[in-house]
Amino acid sequence: MIRTVIVGFGNIGESVLEALLESPDFSVVGIVVTNSHLLNIKTDLPVADDINKFENVQVAILCTPSRMIPLLAESILSKGINTVDAYDMHSGIYELREKLDKIAKENNTASITAAGWDPGTDSAVRALMEIMAPKGITYTDFGPGMSMGHSVAAKAIKGVKNALSMTIPLGTGLHRRIIYVELNDDSDFFSLSKLIKEDDYFAHDETHVIQVSDIKALEDKGHGVNISRKGVSGITHNQNIKFAMSINNPALTGQVLVSCARAVVKQAPGCYTMIEIPLIDMIPGDRESIIRRLV
Amino acid sequence: MIRTVIVGFGNIGESVLEALLESPDFSVVGIVVTNSHLLNIKTDLPVADDINKFENVQVAILCTPSRMIPLLAESILSKGINTVDAYDMHSGIYELREKLDKIAKENNTASITAAGWDPGTDSAVRALMEIMAPKGITYTDFGPGMSMGHSVAAKAIKGVKNALSMTIPLGTGLHRRIIYVELNDDSDFFSLSKLIKEDDYFAHDETHVIQVSDIKALEDKGHGVNISRKGVSGITHNQNIKFAMSINNPALTGQVLVSCARAVVKQAPGCYTMIEIPLIDMIPGDRESIIRRLV
Repeated sequence: MIRTVIVGFGNIGESVLEALLESPDFSVVGIVVTNSHLLNIKTDLPVADDINKFENVQVAILCTPSRMIPLLAESILSKGINTVDAYDMHSGIYELREKLDKIAKENNTASITAAGWDPGTDSAVRALMEIMAPKGITYTDFGPGMSMGHSVAAKAIKGVKNALSMTIPLGTGLHRRIIYVELNDDSDFFSLSKLIKEDDYFAHDETHVIQVSDIKALEDKGHGVNISRKGVSGITHNQNIKFAMSINNPALTGQVLVSCARAVVKQAPGCYTMIEIPLIDMIPGDRESIIRRLV
Repeated sequence: MIRTVIVGFGNIGESVLEALLESPDFSVVGIVVTNSHLLNIKTDLPVADDINKFENVQVAILCTPSRMIPLLAESILSKGINTVDAYDMHSGIYELREKLDKIAKENNTASITAAGWDPGTDSAVRALMEIMAPKGITYTDFGPGMSMGHSVAAKAIKGVKNALSMTIPLGTGLHRRIIYVELNDDSDFFSLSKLIKEDDYFAHDETHVIQVSDIKALEDKGHGVNISRKGVSGITHNQNIKFAMSINNPALTGQVLVSCARAVVKQAPGCYTMIEIPLIDMIPGDRESIIRRLV
């Protein structure tokens, strides 16, 4: 049994706990949250505000917002505990991997970063597509589904009480944003709508703003993606490859984190992205039965 | 540059050569064929009937029929040359991997077996789907496309001059077989059709036999697959994941073999299936640019 701690207990942390309890090979040692959240957590598991309060932890699954991951992963790896995270800021992944790789090696531990569905399993799909057809174009089309980052950006605009940003795929990597907003009583919809569309988060996409009276009535954790590549194998053109899914977003992220927590204890010291790890390491069971079932 | 030899030069061998010549990191040392084929090969490359006639070979890509792979791979690994093959008899893959693993380790070489598209990249897709949703059912539906094995089985029946077996996907892993037959002048279509349908190769599927005057006019190397999984991430049901492709069959197999020839020289001694190898090892270029592009 792999002794595991969950760090952070929002949507993703709860899904990670569900996936851990359904897995045959993990024992959940406890949950780490910041002091201010200690009293809000409803669970029978041990909860603490410091990972040092738990003993013999093999893996920490980091479920905090992405911006907190770099320092948190560094600190936990330094204690000799393996980490897994779903850091999702694509442009910073390579630098984070480099930084954590050094710290992990110094502390004889391993880390898997960017281990959600995008980045994560989608990255593996894009890699497979290039393995099959090295020349060509891959399009990743997200949605329909709620974008956390864009919802937060819209909510941050003064006068917006609550907001939800839907990502709608238009194909070829282009997306429409539909921003549902609940306004403060004294706000003017027309001027706020203009402010949102001019915000750097939305200015580059086709953006529509719709006023509603209750954002909570719209919330749905479903999401999806279409990845397609038309490319060339050898000198043969028009090789068409497609991947699509329609999924509960935090449930999938939580499951992938748990699958990677299984893999991280099998790696040599260092930090890895999912395309750097054999897929078989992420699947429970003995090697023979996995190969007989899947290959 | 990885010094590579192609062993066997039918459909797959030709596609492997095309993919090697398009790749930035290989040099093709030569082609090995049996003595009887030596004069039929049209190429400017060195051709020999014995791999020992080439020097400093790092990888041999085995492009012979599957039934010849076990002895051939064993013999070449014993010479200290890494091997890659697209052995496709699913029920024998684990035993072949075990056998070659031992020989590879004894000779300080590596081997990747079952490295085509099914088994091969499809195996990786099925593994990814289980990583995302460990409980559930995966269906692999092949086609429409020509089945080499079933065509050969139909052709082997006495009175059949030539045959082509199409695999048509019916969903949920079930397939229809349409067997096109060209008959010898003295053959009776009705009795031959009955013999084909009773053959063990066809008795378990919905099979139709159609008489044509010229099989060659039907030949098309296109094929395809649909892989779908509906499963559970953690405790969240109805996670829907799909993969589909429409491709030139030998071109894809040849390309995947070449991608794996790139990976095999990076592995520790032993024999591996594709789900046991990091995907990044199969892609050309430096690690940083691959991670920045795909993760």
